[in-house]
Amino acid sequence: MSQPSDIEIARAARKKPITEIADRLGIPEEAVLPYGRDKAKVDRDFIASLADRRRGKLVLVTAVTPTPAGEGKTTTTVGLGDGLARIGENVAICLREASLGPCFGMKGGAAGGGHAQVVPMEEMNLHFTGDFHAITSAHNLLAAMIDNHIHWGNALDIDARRVTWRRVMDMNDRALRDVVVSLGGVGNGFPRQTGFDITVASEIMAILCLARDLDDLQARLGRIIIGYTRDKAPVTAKDLKADGAMVVLLREAMQPNLVQTLENTPAFVHGGPFANIAHGCNSVVATDTALRLADIVVTEAGFGADLGAEKFLDIKCRKAGLSPDAAVLVATVRSLKMSGGVDKADLGAEDAKAVARGCANLGRHLENLRGYGLPVLVAINRFDGDTEAELAAVRDYVEGQGAEVHLCTHWADGGAGIEGLARRVAEVVQAGDADFAPIYPDDMGLVEKIETVARRIYRAEGVDMPAPVRAQLADWEKAGFGDLPVCMAKTQYSFSADPGLRGAPEGFRVPVREVRLSAGAGFVVAICGEIMTMPGLPRVPAAEAIGLNEAGEIEGLF
Amino acid sequence: MSQPSDIEIARAARKKPITEIADRLGIPEEAVLPYGRDKAKVDRDFIASLADRRRGKLVLVTAVTPTPAGEGKTTTTVGLGDGLARIGENVAICLREASLGPCFGMKGGAAGGGHAQVVPMEEMNLHFTGDFHAITSAHNLLAAMIDNHIHWGNALDIDARRVTWRRVMDMNDRALRDVVVSLGGVGNGFPRQTGFDITVASEIMAILCLARDLDDLQARLGRIIIGYTRDKAPVTAKDLKADGAMVVLLREAMQPNLVQTLENTPAFVHGGPFANIAHGCNSVVATDTALRLADIVVTEAGFGADLGAEKFLDIKCRKAGLSPDAAVLVATVRSLKMSGGVDKADLGAEDAKAVARGCANLGRHLENLRGYGLPVLVAINRFDGDTEAELAAVRDYVEGQGAEVHLCTHWADGGAGIEGLARRVAEVVQAGDADFAPIYPDDMGLVEKIETVARRIYRAEGVDMPAPVRAQLADWEKAGFGDLPVCMAKTQYSFSADPGLRGAPEGFRVPVREVRLSAGAGFVVAICGEIMTMPGLPRVPAAEAIGLNEAGEIEGLF
Repeated sequence: MSQPSDIEIARAARKKPITEIADRLGIPEEAVLPYGRDKAKVDRDFIASLADRRRGKLVLVTAVTPTPAGEGKTTTTVGLGDGLARIGENVAICLREASLGPCFGMKGGAAGGGHAQVVPMEEMNLHFTGDFHAITSAHNLLAAMIDNHIHWGNALDIDARRVTWRRVMDMNDRALRDVVVSLGGVGNGFPRQTGFDITVASEIMAILCLARDLDDLQARLGRIIIGYTRDKAPVTAKDLKADGAMVVLLREAMQPNLVQTLENTPAFVHGGPFANIAHGCNSVVATDTALRLADIVVTEAGFGADLGAEKFLDIKCRKAGLSPDAAVLVATVRSLKMSGGVDKADLGAEDAKAVARGCANLGRHLENLRGYGLPVLVAINRFDGDTEAELAAVRDYVEGQGAEVHLCTHWADGGAGIEGLARRVAEVVQAGDADFAPIYPDDMGLVEKIETVARRIYRAEGVDMPAPVRAQLADWEKAGFGDLPVCMAKTQYSFSADPGLRGAPEGFRVPVREVRLSAGAGFVVAICGEIMTMPGLPRVPAAEAIGLNEAGEIEGLF
Repeated sequence: MSQPSDIEIARAARKKPITEIADRLGIPEEAVLPYGRDKAKVDRDFIASLADRRRGKLVLVTAVTPTPAGEGKTTTTVGLGDGLARIGENVAICLREASLGPCFGMKGGAAGGGHAQVVPMEEMNLHFTGDFHAITSAHNLLAAMIDNHIHWGNALDIDARRVTWRRVMDMNDRALRDVVVSLGGVGNGFPRQTGFDITVASEIMAILCLARDLDDLQARLGRIIIGYTRDKAPVTAKDLKADGAMVVLLREAMQPNLVQTLENTPAFVHGGPFANIAHGCNSVVATDTALRLADIVVTEAGFGADLGAEKFLDIKCRKAGLSPDAAVLVATVRSLKMSGGVDKADLGAEDAKAVARGCANLGRHLENLRGYGLPVLVAINRFDGDTEAELAAVRDYVEGQGAEVHLCTHWADGGAGIEGLARRVAEVVQAGDADFAPIYPDDMGLVEKIETVARRIYRAEGVDMPAPVRAQLADWEKAGFGDLPVCMAKTQYSFSADPGLRGAPEGFRVPVREVRLSAGAGFVVAICGEIMTMPGLPRVPAAEAIGLNEAGEIEGLF
């Protein structure tokens, strides 16, 4: 690579005061709550005052099936925002926050890369403004109140064997996946088996991302089902009188965070990542606020379009009444090569044929997105090693599908490297050709919803569900939860639930291991295959190389 | 009570911009890192620039043995600061941060009370600037790296039975005291029994409070002993290469927080409470920074002087080279009545004789503090229900001990209600009569140090230690840790380890149940009696009454 590292570029950023960034969107200084020098939250009263404004245009950035390193979806979202700003558009970017735990496992970083980053990147990848810590606290307060209630007499008759509410930690810690608590005698409560998920997988993360305001937040928190009585009646957070304290813990976290790109474009960074195990979208409050303030809003959804985009469209947009105006599908030569069967270790060598083979993956995502009624533009996020033959293979394929393709060099060149795409995006959203509809209706059965996503998006032959899973879904339908959408938890490395099936696999079935009801968030989680809701650290964790240098700057985090 | 509630008073505060508060101490605007509108951190580079300045005078506020509601030690610390400001002194206040978990258990609040509070009190009692969350993250990262190391081959030969590093959560959750982790099969690691402490009990909390700067912080984190090999050799955080990542997580938390009192006196709120199970002092960095900027610094130490003051003097002052110039011993009629044998439910009724009996408790604390070479002034924190006869009983007793006593009404009247004490404190610290020395020398044996505190401060007849505890202490002495001070974990409700023994008990022995080595913090923890390092929630947790009112304000937190 011929340019400085991400962290060197970020450190050299010419940041403007955050109040100046806010001012670009018409946010007055008194509505800007600073967190350190270059981060801020936007005041909830100001946000409430925007309710009657007309919304701008919404652009979703999604991607093909990724390599483990990711395909630069955040980088492209940031670059496109900067590109739109360069051509004079009033634009805002909406990103997800980074999860702290994984930064210490594999190489992390959720702030973009190269010359298309949001800053301050170190803090965004660590504690940021504390939103995830607030979610962790609210989640674990509810957990403590459950065991405490049982300990002190269990007036609600909670069946300790049927408590579904686990605990969470924002850490990759496999030892906590499956634990027994309350050992040690009478004073410590009734022993039972339970476990921890990573904070992003918390239902409260999804609730925070989907709630419209504090009242809606409290109502949703109250609806959380923590388990069942011996008579199998659901017990809620409201039954435990935990909803008020939880909303108090989340009050500040509900306010979106404002930062800036290297080119000083405003970016709202708010809500959880991990579209494999969560719904993984920027918060509704942040996206909606951005839409009231900017003419064009560029946002991202996690991993490949089979996960992030599907959930963005079928959960977030459906529930928040959002209607996207265009989608940008990010592809890299590397990811298509991997989809074409090349091993991760060999991605550096030219292989235009593998790229051509891998384009079947791109094609399926493209077709899926068009199926939602969206105009789709393909962006090639160019890497230094990409050859002309490889790039031509992508171009030929995409044009053969009747779509337009843009070679983008924002990683190397910032907004200037993506101006062509930016101009076309601006034209497309103005043309107003989008005709968005979710892929299944609310009143479809839960099993059928899961099957619809598996067949129409993943192209599976069908879904395998053990009888207890089907019975559970039927029970929830009887209890009035049949109208909820489904949130699929699945590997990000394949259309299927098997990370080994690359490209555009066919002839597979999707095993649904477990289902979880998120009555507060408003969806049913279907856990497919081996996907984990608490990651582990690798043999050599990134943490071992993270530290401060002599200047007190952070090294090794990215 | 004839005055509005604490929260009503706090909401009506006429807060000044935090930069203006900083300016009173000569902290320039560029060194003030705002967190929201009325909290800030002070930049580490500015702090480093103060190293050559001369220190002001240091006043410790401590108390008699408390009732469960507390005796207004923080309230008096705040009031005394305001009183000193009123008489024209250049003063700063140094307080501990609040622990989040207990706020949802018993009625909480660690920001003072009445007209002697620091603001914003809601945020201080919740997430504040995220310091405790950072400590939780750093602590649990190390825990995850331990189990991860064992899982991936255990190159360091860590004995899973001898891992002493537990996990932490800032929550009252008895179910986590004693747990088995890593159940569920090969992928989840090796099952073992462990547990969680509350975050304030984390060694990292103590390290953060005692470290001088980031280099010292990293060195101390590296020295943390997480357990032992099969050959009983200690394994450290540095052996696991965790120290760098941990210091990165704590970088911002190391910077002291600045807020203000209701009367706009600057207050540094930094470091952990819980002098029963931790050392429970404001951080060395905050206290030292305040001493470089102000002529008089007023700080507090938790619970009664047997716990907070002993640790402040024998651990913090010894290790940080601080030399206090005076101590203020806070007493209330209520606490003395309880020490005199009155039940908690009957504290409202006049009982001057019980107060007189309870003064023996005050007398012992007074004598102890004088034993450290400190001038001691007694402050009566007046409550509405106190009668003249009860107040006279205290006054007579204290004067009989040759000490001066001040009736203080700062709760009702703010700084104006404590001006008399403030004038005398200013005179006493100027007189320079203090001749501080810790109660035991560094080179005394660990058993003898524990016995010294138990005999000379608690007035126990002796200490009961099981043979394994004695063997453990002997091992640590052999390993070079014999020079460390001891940090006693003991109930705050008695001089003894039995909360039922009130007043000035005699003829008791102190059982030491367990000892823990905090090689990074630099002390040995001796756990006495039934004291818990993870609290539980009560039958009706305060959380049930906490919530937002229609104006979006927090109710029920205090």
